[in-house]
Amino acid sequence: MILANPHFAKIQASYLFSTIAARVREFSAAHPDARLIRLGIGDVTRALPPACVEAMQKAVGEMGADATFRGYGPEFGYDFLRETIAKADFQSRGADIQADEIFVSDGAKCDTGNFQELFAAGGFTIGVPDPVYPVYVDTNVMAGRTGAAADGRYAGLVYLESDEANGFVPAPPEGQVDLLYLCFPNNPTGATATREQLAAFVDYAHEHKALILFDAAYEAFIRDESIPHSIYEIPGAREVAVEFRSLSKTAGFTGTRCGYTVVPRDCRVFAEDGSKVLLAPLWQRRMSTKFNGVSYPVQRAAEAVFSEAGRRQCRELVDGYLANAKLIRERLQAKGFKTTGGDNSPYIWFNTGMDSWAFFDKLLNEAQVVTTPGAGFGRCGNGYIRISAFNSMQNVATALDRICSIL
Amino acid sequence: MILANPHFAKIQASYLFSTIAARVREFSAAHPDARLIRLGIGDVTRALPPACVEAMQKAVGEMGADATFRGYGPEFGYDFLRETIAKADFQSRGADIQADEIFVSDGAKCDTGNFQELFAAGGFTIGVPDPVYPVYVDTNVMAGRTGAAADGRYAGLVYLESDEANGFVPAPPEGQVDLLYLCFPNNPTGATATREQLAAFVDYAHEHKALILFDAAYEAFIRDESIPHSIYEIPGAREVAVEFRSLSKTAGFTGTRCGYTVVPRDCRVFAEDGSKVLLAPLWQRRMSTKFNGVSYPVQRAAEAVFSEAGRRQCRELVDGYLANAKLIRERLQAKGFKTTGGDNSPYIWFNTGMDSWAFFDKLLNEAQVVTTPGAGFGRCGNGYIRISAFNSMQNVATALDRICSIL
Repeated sequence: MILANPHFAKIQASYLFSTIAARVREFSAAHPDARLIRLGIGDVTRALPPACVEAMQKAVGEMGADATFRGYGPEFGYDFLRETIAKADFQSRGADIQADEIFVSDGAKCDTGNFQELFAAGGFTIGVPDPVYPVYVDTNVMAGRTGAAADGRYAGLVYLESDEANGFVPAPPEGQVDLLYLCFPNNPTGATATREQLAAFVDYAHEHKALILFDAAYEAFIRDESIPHSIYEIPGAREVAVEFRSLSKTAGFTGTRCGYTVVPRDCRVFAEDGSKVLLAPLWQRRMSTKFNGVSYPVQRAAEAVFSEAGRRQCRELVDGYLANAKLIRERLQAKGFKTTGGDNSPYIWFNTGMDSWAFFDKLLNEAQVVTTPGAGFGRCGNGYIRISAFNSMQNVATALDRICSIL
Repeated sequence: MILANPHFAKIQASYLFSTIAARVREFSAAHPDARLIRLGIGDVTRALPPACVEAMQKAVGEMGADATFRGYGPEFGYDFLRETIAKADFQSRGADIQADEIFVSDGAKCDTGNFQELFAAGGFTIGVPDPVYPVYVDTNVMAGRTGAAADGRYAGLVYLESDEANGFVPAPPEGQVDLLYLCFPNNPTGATATREQLAAFVDYAHEHKALILFDAAYEAFIRDESIPHSIYEIPGAREVAVEFRSLSKTAGFTGTRCGYTVVPRDCRVFAEDGSKVLLAPLWQRRMSTKFNGVSYPVQRAAEAVFSEAGRRQCRELVDGYLANAKLIRERLQAKGFKTTGGDNSPYIWFNTGMDSWAFFDKLLNEAQVVTTPGAGFGRCGNGYIRISAFNSMQNVATALDRICSIL
């Protein structure tokens, strides 16, 4: 008989954002007239930059004529896009990353989820932040690399606790951890890591033959010049780190779908006998076997993000969200809450002083504002709420008026 | 230390089409003036249907205005598309499939590759056709469900041989096989399965508690009214079969990217203790954790495939490729080759009477025509060549003139 993957059953609740969506649907059904404001899931609300729209329209037009039509594209992305990304995102910041080390995909969620396929089924230790973007954990649970869950944590994982004591940036672990998921600017806390903090992880990875999976989906929100945008700004990172990037928040691509993963040519893992195994050929194999490239018009839209007009428009887009973040931060602080994030990130994380699902329900029921309960991101999120700056300034202002009036 | 997945190393050669691409690049570099004609990889060459271009342009325009912008879409696809597909592809043919059983993705290659994640790491037997679309095999090798390869076959897999004796449609296996990959119209042979032949597999799956993964990516090429387009036209298939569909060949979407997978609500696998496990919740979990939906403009283009204009345009597109297929079939037969396919499929499969990579090289070097060596699809492909009808009529005619002149 055909056997189900038994590990799926270990997952504790449905994917966090699906659960929230279900609670919101339930509330809306019971209160059809309520004017909900969504500051929950990190989903952008403003139009795609004109440069991207124009490039995509042009590419769709090309698809409509035999002479300019494009069928299967290169599985790892068109050269025009890989070259543009390597220059704009990395070389311009002094990071030595070449075009053939960039792998274009339909999103960083897919890539962070799929990347674990390149590792052995077991025999090594995984470290995840707490609070954590659930995809890092759930995909390893599904692959059978953890034990059962108890009290919100899975047996076999090492949780790197992020809390007020460490400013929401954990230090490298004390003992041996072989795979480290990091995300800065952080989802959900909005915290950023300094050059020194990242360098400590890079050093750790070299010393412990570990690998860092670095999620930089929110780098476009960094405004403090001293904060690295890429882990490859840290010397030595090429051999020990893979970086995930997304245009979802940078350029409003959540519904358009494009991200990319950087796997440097010399980045390594190990065979059982301790010999080095290069990671790039494994990812190439994975992508050429299970993926068929990103839609051509989407890749042209992505290329336009890096044009002069595209850069300016994306900067304005992000600045708008950062202005919202500032408002959220300031008004919560005025109410006496301690907040993190929102200066170099679109997320504001704050301690509610009560159970976070209860606080989530309170905001939903009394203020008609959707947020994200911190407990959904792990034990260290208990009592916290994540507020997202992705909405119009008007909606954000109204939401804060409502929230402040009930607190 | 971080350990590599050891199973990747078992894969025998790089992905078939990457290998072919490398040989073609090498030839082109040595013969920069050669005018190559590509009848190899099954990649469409004609423009996207006007109805799709128009719908996609409109959707891109919507993305450019705040009021009509769309962020994250539903992970399983927009209702407008799922409902359209359920009606047009299934209900209209008497197959009882509902919209919420359709899962929209960026392609059938991804889905056929990813679906094996829902099964246990081992403890059951996998049957694949020979010759076979390499994705079915390679993804299971990577997941560690096979032993090493020897003489072109992996230990632990059951190969369902397709040859002249069975008209390239194998019967269900004699013994116990728990997971069966089927593809009709077949890639690479072009053979189609009758209702009775499919019914035998459905019966087998019920009797043996097996599951069928049915790849119907080429169903749009069926012109013989008696041949089923979907496995759900067979009574009882809902519980024992998953079906993969693609718009790549139906509507010229190879570079636009959209496919869909059907997982009926009552389709089941089993737990170790023999109890039933429904498959749909597992696929939903997989997709909501590792995927973020298909680009909105692409979903609108996909919807347009099923409009009145879209259907007519797609039919014309496919008819054009079928006319090429007829020409290929007839000219090869006139040269004395026995061919399969090309009547209800875009592929023509024929016995060359020599080693298929040698024949591939002969056609590349002497006729400047790219084909696909049958040996790349498995042991039963030794001696065969697959010719694809995806090109302009002019190019196909020229390629056949060249081929016939050297044979």
